[in-house]
Amino acid sequence: MKKIGFIGLGLMGRGMSLNLLKANFPLTVWNRTRSKMKPLLDAGAEEGLSPKNVAERSDIIIDIVTDSSDVEEIILGDEGVIHGAKPGAVVVDMSTISPITTRQIAEKLSKKGIHMLDAPVSGGDVGAREGTLSIMVGGELDVFQDCLPVFQAMGKTIVHVGGHGMGQIVKLCNQILVGLNMLAVAEAFMFASKAGVDLQKAYSAIVGGAAGSWQLTNNGAKLLKGDLEPGFKVKDYIKDLRLISETTAEMKLPLLGTSLVQQMFRILDAEGLRDKGTQAVIKAVEKIACDSFLRAL
Amino acid sequence: MKKIGFIGLGLMGRGMSLNLLKANFPLTVWNRTRSKMKPLLDAGAEEGLSPKNVAERSDIIIDIVTDSSDVEEIILGDEGVIHGAKPGAVVVDMSTISPITTRQIAEKLSKKGIHMLDAPVSGGDVGAREGTLSIMVGGELDVFQDCLPVFQAMGKTIVHVGGHGMGQIVKLCNQILVGLNMLAVAEAFMFASKAGVDLQKAYSAIVGGAAGSWQLTNNGAKLLKGDLEPGFKVKDYIKDLRLISETTAEMKLPLLGTSLVQQMFRILDAEGLRDKGTQAVIKAVEKIACDSFLRAL
Repeated sequence: MKKIGFIGLGLMGRGMSLNLLKANFPLTVWNRTRSKMKPLLDAGAEEGLSPKNVAERSDIIIDIVTDSSDVEEIILGDEGVIHGAKPGAVVVDMSTISPITTRQIAEKLSKKGIHMLDAPVSGGDVGAREGTLSIMVGGELDVFQDCLPVFQAMGKTIVHVGGHGMGQIVKLCNQILVGLNMLAVAEAFMFASKAGVDLQKAYSAIVGGAAGSWQLTNNGAKLLKGDLEPGFKVKDYIKDLRLISETTAEMKLPLLGTSLVQQMFRILDAEGLRDKGTQAVIKAVEKIACDSFLRAL
Repeated sequence: MKKIGFIGLGLMGRGMSLNLLKANFPLTVWNRTRSKMKPLLDAGAEEGLSPKNVAERSDIIIDIVTDSSDVEEIILGDEGVIHGAKPGAVVVDMSTISPITTRQIAEKLSKKGIHMLDAPVSGGDVGAREGTLSIMVGGELDVFQDCLPVFQAMGKTIVHVGGHGMGQIVKLCNQILVGLNMLAVAEAFMFASKAGVDLQKAYSAIVGGAAGSWQLTNNGAKLLKGDLEPGFKVKDYIKDLRLISETTAEMKLPLLGTSLVQQMFRILDAEGLRDKGTQAVIKAVEKIACDSFLRAL
């Protein structure tokens, strides 16, 4: 059985690495904040001393951290994976980062005979815990196939979508949809609220039809309870919007709807709502409407 | 069994009235273009001579036509329903029209002892044919309950959402979601296409997750085949956007996302695409992107 290294034991990484242990993969873990390793070590993982050290002891090195610069540090830094990984090893970056950075890292690893896959996920901490993530994978097909049993321990919908960086592109595609669908829910609820409709009834009448979406079903239901707590945090989505914005600038691609979503989330940033869930976009809609949605609840 | 009158035998009205016949309701029909009555008369409906005449012969008078002014003409015009309906009769307007106009009509009918329900539908011509429409109903609760068996012959999700006009409000709420969700699909596909991803793979990877929506599943699949034929026509959605715009102006409610959707559909209008399906919004996204999405197919 392949030896797995796992770097980044945040809300996502913790659930995912525990699922790898459950599937009996030998696991070496590392996290910048060392205390976060404890639950994994208790569950049977070995302790890595650095990303480099994890790589020395693993066939497949997975990382899931926040941003492009974090991934660069972990893979290419002084104590990075690139200095420990054996030729033929595979680095699997499951973070959501820039597709451009992804291709640069893949090229540097390739020069040392190390393979790379970009494999960002969708499905949140619940999906990570329950092993039901969607995983969109970019990189060479045969490398993907070698790693498939590992992905299957963590996710349900696993699709190889193309070469290096394409996993990231599809993830950003996912995030374009997520943001506009969420804005749709917020504007529809603000409209219904202002018109004095019973929101619960309106929700029941439309949730199953052509207006339906995952965002309406799930974040819509949260809004009906006035619940702004995260599933997916505003600050993480703001990062994704920045990645979309960087990537579309590179492509010379204007996307008006997505650009509006970015401005709406900037309002949330200005209002100090970075740690709320993305359904808090209702607060930006309210700000612009000079009225409160929640009074209708 | 209540005697039903049915006015407006277009794509929607035809399927709905045939379902009423199947449920054994005695039916009198009328349509401005008389030839469209033929299939109903062949199926056992009686021929009405005018909206007034239909109303004289019915306990419940249903209409489904295009716009606010059509409904006013049919109900309040010289040969209108108001001049034939008995006190205690119910007028059920299943068109999508202005909630403000709806309330005005309800008030005029009320002075003659005639009840009114606004009961717009969602689910398209397929839903009309198969009797699976969503029906969102505004008006008095006991009148709604009296008419429930009639609605059940035409639809599946039937919700009483509030007083006069509230059915229309919830329908517009539905249309806010439909438009932004469709724009989301178009921008996501344009992004994926420009980045060179295999669109079919991208679609498979994201359709079942947090990015999912009815619009992605259905109109997204059509776009993957380059199919711009209607389901729901651009020109009908442009009318709904006008109703949303009128209603939000009255409410003093700014909705930036919905307003952007309206401008995108104005591009389709300018491009002569009124008879295409709403998924043709990809053409507006392409116009702004100065690039073609379809080349990726």
